[in-house]
Amino acid sequence: MLEDWLAPKAAALEARGLTRRLVARAADGGLIDLAGNDYLGLARDPRVVTAAADAVRTWGTGATASRLVTGTTELHEELESALAAYAGQESALVFSSGYLANLGVVTALGGPGTLLVSDEHVHASLVDAGRLARSRVEIVPHNDVDAVEKVLAERNEPHAVVMTESVFSVLSDEAPLLELAAVARAHNAVLLVDEAHGLGVSGNGHGSVHAAGLAGLEHVVVTMTLSKSLASQGGVVLGPSVLREHLVNRARPFIYDTGLNPAACAAALAALEVLQVEPDRPAAIHAAAARLAAACEVPPSRGAVVSVPMPGPRETVRAAELCLRNGVRVGSFRPPSVPDGISRLRLTAHAGLSAADLDRACAVVVDAIGAVS
Amino acid sequence: MLEDWLAPKAAALEARGLTRRLVARAADGGLIDLAGNDYLGLARDPRVVTAAADAVRTWGTGATASRLVTGTTELHEELESALAAYAGQESALVFSSGYLANLGVVTALGGPGTLLVSDEHVHASLVDAGRLARSRVEIVPHNDVDAVEKVLAERNEPHAVVMTESVFSVLSDEAPLLELAAVARAHNAVLLVDEAHGLGVSGNGHGSVHAAGLAGLEHVVVTMTLSKSLASQGGVVLGPSVLREHLVNRARPFIYDTGLNPAACAAALAALEVLQVEPDRPAAIHAAAARLAAACEVPPSRGAVVSVPMPGPRETVRAAELCLRNGVRVGSFRPPSVPDGISRLRLTAHAGLSAADLDRACAVVVDAIGAVS
Repeated sequence: MLEDWLAPKAAALEARGLTRRLVARAADGGLIDLAGNDYLGLARDPRVVTAAADAVRTWGTGATASRLVTGTTELHEELESALAAYAGQESALVFSSGYLANLGVVTALGGPGTLLVSDEHVHASLVDAGRLARSRVEIVPHNDVDAVEKVLAERNEPHAVVMTESVFSVLSDEAPLLELAAVARAHNAVLLVDEAHGLGVSGNGHGSVHAAGLAGLEHVVVTMTLSKSLASQGGVVLGPSVLREHLVNRARPFIYDTGLNPAACAAALAALEVLQVEPDRPAAIHAAAARLAAACEVPPSRGAVVSVPMPGPRETVRAAELCLRNGVRVGSFRPPSVPDGISRLRLTAHAGLSAADLDRACAVVVDAIGAVS
Repeated sequence: MLEDWLAPKAAALEARGLTRRLVARAADGGLIDLAGNDYLGLARDPRVVTAAADAVRTWGTGATASRLVTGTTELHEELESALAAYAGQESALVFSSGYLANLGVVTALGGPGTLLVSDEHVHASLVDAGRLARSRVEIVPHNDVDAVEKVLAERNEPHAVVMTESVFSVLSDEAPLLELAAVARAHNAVLLVDEAHGLGVSGNGHGSVHAAGLAGLEHVVVTMTLSKSLASQGGVVLGPSVLREHLVNRARPFIYDTGLNPAACAAALAALEVLQVEPDRPAAIHAAAARLAAACEVPPSRGAVVSVPMPGPRETVRAAELCLRNGVRVGSFRPPSVPDGISRLRLTAHAGLSAADLDRACAVVVDAIGAVS
């Protein structure tokens, strides 16, 4: 039954070289990591580890319920206050994943009376949020402010939400936030910015919205993940208090989901504290990213991820395997995870990379690319 | 802008007594807890706590990437093997929340060629999954096998998925799994059973699908949460290996989400081990639930949750406040979280409740109900 249904689909993927397989890693593989999103190098920082382990002992291993029942601990509130303060926002609401944060805020603001305007390159979670919101969705060309203005001006819906990211993952470019915010304000629309790749990286760590002077504006809403720079799990929606109250009452992926576990809350909180006492970490990400980009002869990245276009998906996989064999773990982007169909090696710069590791990584990656191209 | 948009909605909710507010709890409130979903009483079990704290030290505080990049650790694989073995299934795939597990499996099996048949009482995550799947969705009356058969027989789609829960949260009743499985098989459909409230509770802990002899059948798929009986966070889809492979390649909420954090993996794994060496815990849940139901003069529950119908949402909130003032934390169900519009007190039976605490809880709850009715 399921075999008859799904096995032909699996064979079709395999024939195109696009089958994805899970490979489990060991606790310490002795590898140089250019694949994970621990941008600031904090997932094994003793301060962050100790905070998480202590939280498990103090609060238990789970939140034990949805946030509205008894799954909100003082730790959740402390984390939300700290995130809001760091991002320069009035309030924050933490979800158990970044995916759910995006689904939650978009569906709670969506509906027939709301037009959703989506940059064509936004993350899968925002695409799914648009599908789920029961709104009309207009997809506009990447970073095209005029196209955004046109659909906002021509809409019949009283409300509108413009969805973008501050730093895009695959192309590593940035959204024109100032222009988008101005257009949104002129047309009585909300600008929703996903800072998954901005927090801890852009704006000296505070994110691109903060750097652009847009934090705290009533029509600018931000989402972030706790699973990249903050070395944890979960997501957060930041904005005016009236939005937070609305989400608590209307965001189904918040209301009907178990709260984030205490270990993850404490880890994110401790990572944010490290970022504040060591504010040079974001600059270290950019230095490593510039080095990787130069070695691979690709344009500089605006974020932590350096993308290297490859001839095809099979060459991408082979290059990644070659890197791994030589002690360097890299990621890959293959269809359908690329906006333009071009497969890429995905190299993540980390604040924690030593100069020697970075040298070695550059050499290995450049060799691998040469070997398969 | 957001103020003008959202404040009137907040006022409308307030006028109907339906505003929801977050209340943070302390680490040790000295309360008797009938609100959380830690059914087996394991969230503070030293074995589970130690496993989670150790995992943070061994594996770090986050999975650091999506499962397909480098977010799959050996711990994730170990957890998946243990869950599959316990549930009697060929394979398991862990998601970062139960909500995402339901979204993932339904959207990956959905699409224009698939009819989704949904019991009217299924959880919000399955409702949202149906909306997101781009399938035709038929909602059928609660536990109505004939209605399921009729829509399956009359469909034009080649594929179909029948969605239900094993133990329903609000009414605490069970789905007719054997009949549904037979009808699904006769009509070449998949039966998808959410065992969020079944795992650790029904079938001596193994769940209702296992108890009904349906585990491992090719057309029966199960989802579970790790955040209730297993005292952790996350969700899992269990079924044939061909389904797991399909989800790894097609389930967007799996592919584009960071993997479950190591502390949560280890906690769930340790809780499952406790459940196996102490197999009497599920019976203790049922004994406590029977006691609570008898005290409140409501029918016995098939799960851990005992629902007590109340005159209205305001009375429900007042009764819960009275209980809290007397040292007992209870939950509440209010619209829109009830299928029939009837507000209820939500009392969760835990395996860990002492006889004295149970006596005290019964007395406090009965008094509170009397005081507001």
